[in-house]
Amino acid sequence: MRVVRLENHAVQVRNQPRPRRPEGFALIRLLYGGICNTDLELARGYYGFSGTPGHEFVGEVVEADSTAWIGERVVGEINLACEKCEWCRRGLGRHCPKRTVLGIVKHPGAFRDFLTLPEHNLRRVPRGISSQHAVFVEPLAAACEILDQVRIPAGAPVAVLGDGKLGLLIGQVLKAHGTEVHQYGRHQEKLRIAASAGIETRVTKMLPVAAYDWVVDATGSSEGLRQAVGMSRPRGTVVMKSTVHGLVAIDTAPVIVNEITLIGSRCGRFEPALRLLRSGKVRVDQMISEVLPLSSAPVAFRRAGQPGILKVLLQG
Amino acid sequence: MRVVRLENHAVQVRNQPRPRRPEGFALIRLLYGGICNTDLELARGYYGFSGTPGHEFVGEVVEADSTAWIGERVVGEINLACEKCEWCRRGLGRHCPKRTVLGIVKHPGAFRDFLTLPEHNLRRVPRGISSQHAVFVEPLAAACEILDQVRIPAGAPVAVLGDGKLGLLIGQVLKAHGTEVHQYGRHQEKLRIAASAGIETRVTKMLPVAAYDWVVDATGSSEGLRQAVGMSRPRGTVVMKSTVHGLVAIDTAPVIVNEITLIGSRCGRFEPALRLLRSGKVRVDQMISEVLPLSSAPVAFRRAGQPGILKVLLQG
Repeated sequence: MRVVRLENHAVQVRNQPRPRRPEGFALIRLLYGGICNTDLELARGYYGFSGTPGHEFVGEVVEADSTAWIGERVVGEINLACEKCEWCRRGLGRHCPKRTVLGIVKHPGAFRDFLTLPEHNLRRVPRGISSQHAVFVEPLAAACEILDQVRIPAGAPVAVLGDGKLGLLIGQVLKAHGTEVHQYGRHQEKLRIAASAGIETRVTKMLPVAAYDWVVDATGSSEGLRQAVGMSRPRGTVVMKSTVHGLVAIDTAPVIVNEITLIGSRCGRFEPALRLLRSGKVRVDQMISEVLPLSSAPVAFRRAGQPGILKVLLQG
Repeated sequence: MRVVRLENHAVQVRNQPRPRRPEGFALIRLLYGGICNTDLELARGYYGFSGTPGHEFVGEVVEADSTAWIGERVVGEINLACEKCEWCRRGLGRHCPKRTVLGIVKHPGAFRDFLTLPEHNLRRVPRGISSQHAVFVEPLAAACEILDQVRIPAGAPVAVLGDGKLGLLIGQVLKAHGTEVHQYGRHQEKLRIAASAGIETRVTKMLPVAAYDWVVDATGSSEGLRQAVGMSRPRGTVVMKSTVHGLVAIDTAPVIVNEITLIGSRCGRFEPALRLLRSGKVRVDQMISEVLPLSSAPVAFRRAGQPGILKVLLQG
């Protein structure tokens, strides 16, 4: 089978035998994988990663302990948790200290023709969601996570900083929740996608000061946090969705003087994401920039890193 | 009357006429003022401050619109708010955008024989609290503010990082609230004060990793935030009480990956502080390092900046 590998800052495609499925695990044939910014960072050699990346995927189960899974179209929770510890018992396996993470930490990723995941990590993709759209379930769950962490009242104005892939999903999720989203970005063509979802968009030139009780930083830049803090009203909340490599320099004085809350936010539950996709309240069709075969992964990674490009899919 | 002034990085004492009391304001004779780290930063020329510092004080009202105040021993809320805006209406004049701040922003401070404050900023000091102890009401209110911002369950272990003046008050407040406080610091003699209040103390050498759901950074150092984040469990809360001049470099990745909440915390309501002092649940006697007359302010500021020194009081 074809396997994408990152090694020495290079993206390669190799041939390897199919993986064996351990007990409790399903063997899944890849339909589509999505390239995310984390994958691009791994490819740049950050975090000393080498191996197979990929954590956004949709696939078809070909082998499993429970035959009910066979033939099902599935997406998969990316954290492989111990299922025994305090975090797992609280339903927060995403924070299990023993977890491995699909395509990121000690579990080979989804960019290969066949992958394995524990059966309890799988979620059926309901009819009505196309396979290409189902790839967005994982990042959409990360966007939904915000609403599991903070209670934003319906109708409240929320600033979403950033018009990248995650920013556009967050804007739609918060809009579907009933908040008044103002999406700030630098790219007219990306903001147009937000606008077509009925979101008010603003080009990031002059950012308003102390204007919002709720600000989401999804810029992916080290500037984003400072900007978000500046836009927050006293006692406001800044949701941190930008993973940035390296140290970020911030002036903590305004955070303290204005008693602002900063809250880190990562992966989320898949269920709300599947519901939003199925209901059509979140639309991802305009966010697919390109679809390339798995064997073209080196080109796909290059394309995904180019300006103006949103989601690049790898077809299995 | 004697007036302390900060100018060109120097602490001076001058003679000036008594201030006139505007309508709605009280004229207050200083009994004691307390030198806080913010005062030391102002004296170092940070924030471009020049003028009279001092925001921790206890005094006696000598003139006021309402004669009921005359002769009363008072402390005073340091934020002079507009009393009209949204924040003021919500009882959060501490965040009024038009506020001036006693001894910090555009209102001359308390380190002078007579000062002025709006009458509604004053709080009577009940019998049973000595004047020297009453000076601690303002920083103690800042410590109490934490409990107005976050709900820490009784019995929960809380790490307090820092054994300075504010750290020691925070430790006692949280202990009085019924949490299990672990106070981390570098100074055996300061930690002894926490220990005498029944607090478990630990010298900051090896800090435990991912060990607390609640961490308070009161180190006053740019290292403190990073340390506090490292000590926080996933989904934990770090209360930011360290005002540090300049930029702080932090790695935002653990905040996001572990979905940690950082919450800035500043001034607080005086009422809980007065109650804690009166009840004896918070004791400040061991925290007074020295008492010097107002005219010795230059010496007092020098002393207050020396290692091992806690609160230095200026006597009016």
